[in-house]
Amino acid sequence: MVTIAVDAMGGDFGHAVTVDGARLALDLLRKSGILSKEMLRFLFFGDGDKISEELKKHIEVAEITEIVHADVIVTNEMKPIDAMRHRHDSNLGLAIDAVARGRADAVVSAANTGAYIALAKTILGTLPFVERPAIPAVMPHVNGKSIVLDLGANLECSAERLVQFALMGESFARSLLKKESPSVGLLNVGAEEMKGHATVQTAGRLLHNISKHTSTADGEAHTKEKESLAHSYFNFHGFIEGNDIFRGVTDVVVTDGFSGNIALKAIEGVIWFFFKLLKDSMKDSLVSKLVGLTVLPTLRKIKKTIDPRLYNGAVLLGLKKIAVKSHGGADSFGFAQAIKVGVQMVQSSFLEDVEKRLQLLPEIQ
Amino acid sequence: MVTIAVDAMGGDFGHAVTVDGARLALDLLRKSGILSKEMLRFLFFGDGDKISEELKKHIEVAEITEIVHADVIVTNEMKPIDAMRHRHDSNLGLAIDAVARGRADAVVSAANTGAYIALAKTILGTLPFVERPAIPAVMPHVNGKSIVLDLGANLECSAERLVQFALMGESFARSLLKKESPSVGLLNVGAEEMKGHATVQTAGRLLHNISKHTSTADGEAHTKEKESLAHSYFNFHGFIEGNDIFRGVTDVVVTDGFSGNIALKAIEGVIWFFFKLLKDSMKDSLVSKLVGLTVLPTLRKIKKTIDPRLYNGAVLLGLKKIAVKSHGGADSFGFAQAIKVGVQMVQSSFLEDVEKRLQLLPEIQ
Repeated sequence: MVTIAVDAMGGDFGHAVTVDGARLALDLLRKSGILSKEMLRFLFFGDGDKISEELKKHIEVAEITEIVHADVIVTNEMKPIDAMRHRHDSNLGLAIDAVARGRADAVVSAANTGAYIALAKTILGTLPFVERPAIPAVMPHVNGKSIVLDLGANLECSAERLVQFALMGESFARSLLKKESPSVGLLNVGAEEMKGHATVQTAGRLLHNISKHTSTADGEAHTKEKESLAHSYFNFHGFIEGNDIFRGVTDVVVTDGFSGNIALKAIEGVIWFFFKLLKDSMKDSLVSKLVGLTVLPTLRKIKKTIDPRLYNGAVLLGLKKIAVKSHGGADSFGFAQAIKVGVQMVQSSFLEDVEKRLQLLPEIQ
Repeated sequence: MVTIAVDAMGGDFGHAVTVDGARLALDLLRKSGILSKEMLRFLFFGDGDKISEELKKHIEVAEITEIVHADVIVTNEMKPIDAMRHRHDSNLGLAIDAVARGRADAVVSAANTGAYIALAKTILGTLPFVERPAIPAVMPHVNGKSIVLDLGANLECSAERLVQFALMGESFARSLLKKESPSVGLLNVGAEEMKGHATVQTAGRLLHNISKHTSTADGEAHTKEKESLAHSYFNFHGFIEGNDIFRGVTDVVVTDGFSGNIALKAIEGVIWFFFKLLKDSMKDSLVSKLVGLTVLPTLRKIKKTIDPRLYNGAVLLGLKKIAVKSHGGADSFGFAQAIKVGVQMVQSSFLEDVEKRLQLLPEIQ
């Protein structure tokens, strides 16, 4: 049985989208054989009346859902400090608390990042060595998907922090992308070993050490001891560059939250710009309009493949329990994806895995 | 008379491209009314025999070109330290030296960035307050173009360094984009004033101070004194985000070289990915191939508009003279653009302007 605590009100659209998202998630999980209806349960946190109103439209969801009314709603604009004051009586505070108390296995919310991280960090607690959770994004590339982190939760990163991201991202990639030893790249201004500033240089060296430490090539003697600490090989590729993200050079792409946030938004911006120019060019003449319309399905498909916004469901990495962040602007389908990611993480050995991975940190200093 | 020192050998293609680029630049400058043939002169630095061989194909260029043979060629792979050893006998060293001695007004080279910056910094010298030149890029956006800097020359930036970039970028934008008071934005993880780490926060505050300092709103009394220091209003917009680059929110976009380099390459990567998917989808069926072919001219036009690689000619900012960096992979047309930018900078009051702008630095601490 998997129980998902859903913040019914977060994001730009509220309860209609989250309840409909739960319905889509149920379909999605059932069809993909991940989970039957009998094995899934929802706890919905928010305005009780509104939730039950929405649930009337989706009887199947209603059958497996329990409503928890909250007097206070964490809004998009609410500052972390205000959200913290309402940790005991807000939709989001109560949803996270359900996970902390074991009533639910994971929480899914589209609430604003600042408030969500502040509450999740306090209520769920962070894993050893982690000061603050990191936010990964799932990014498309030419051979599949990769995990890129951090996306803005940690703006100034020491080398040790970047190493943490690498370990947590690798663990997340193992569960999400289902790869034994996901490859890890560290974003830099060049792929050559001497490139970059001191922080990225040190992080690169530490990650190479971890890679060696988890390798069995250096003899059988350490194998048993290693098994308890590092169950599998940490596949550090080395430095990569911004364009390597889309070439699928590595499964995990590590960078500080400042560069990561700017890069992600620049990517979103250039995609927007492209489709703006395309739309404008289609206005020019009837012929180009007709041609544009015929090629539009293909372009839409490409946009769907390429747009990182559509890969919804970022697990906040470094927490003791599973908390999934949905985009504020996600529609029902996007929210369903976030619920699906939550279920997948519960079913995988992600939490155990990431804790083990982080134990490598004191080993390689 | 404008004399351009051309490094004939830099870049991936060498003398054939640079000589042909000079021919295209001559056409370009003549047609746009910027400069007549009588007012333009080239000094070509490289393998004398090869240059004169190429010049035979372009008599018009030969008529206004002087060849300077160099025994040593700075290659793409040459490290800055090796380039420095050959500052007195290499194509690039001699080309830059011609500008330092006043024999030429600007140098244009597609040599590797590290070697170019090392030589240019040593031979030409930097302006007061500038430790190391910054590299700007010209980026397209929905309403025109903007200047984005730094693109990788300065990886770790203090707040003061970011302020330098802002002043130099604004000055470059004034000459290149021909705007009286180009607007300046500082890249951050959010547009709100409290966002970002300490460095970007301090830089934002300093830039607001400069903006106020150059504003005439605070009274007429300071006007005369200001005229000598700051000839025009410094239009600081505040923080902007990665996607704002393409919305054309500001004329100048300032960031550290690490984030800037990663963002630029990520942008290039996503454009590459898009066209890769498009090409692949066109293989699928004859119909989609036909449709693709008809819409291809439009898409190519968009790619030409959107791809930052096609806006060639970055002036190394913070040097006492004008040095233009062409992409290593630029073709003749790209190299001609770089020469054109060099001529435009010589004709503008850019050097005087940027030096004046930098004098604002001690004013606002």
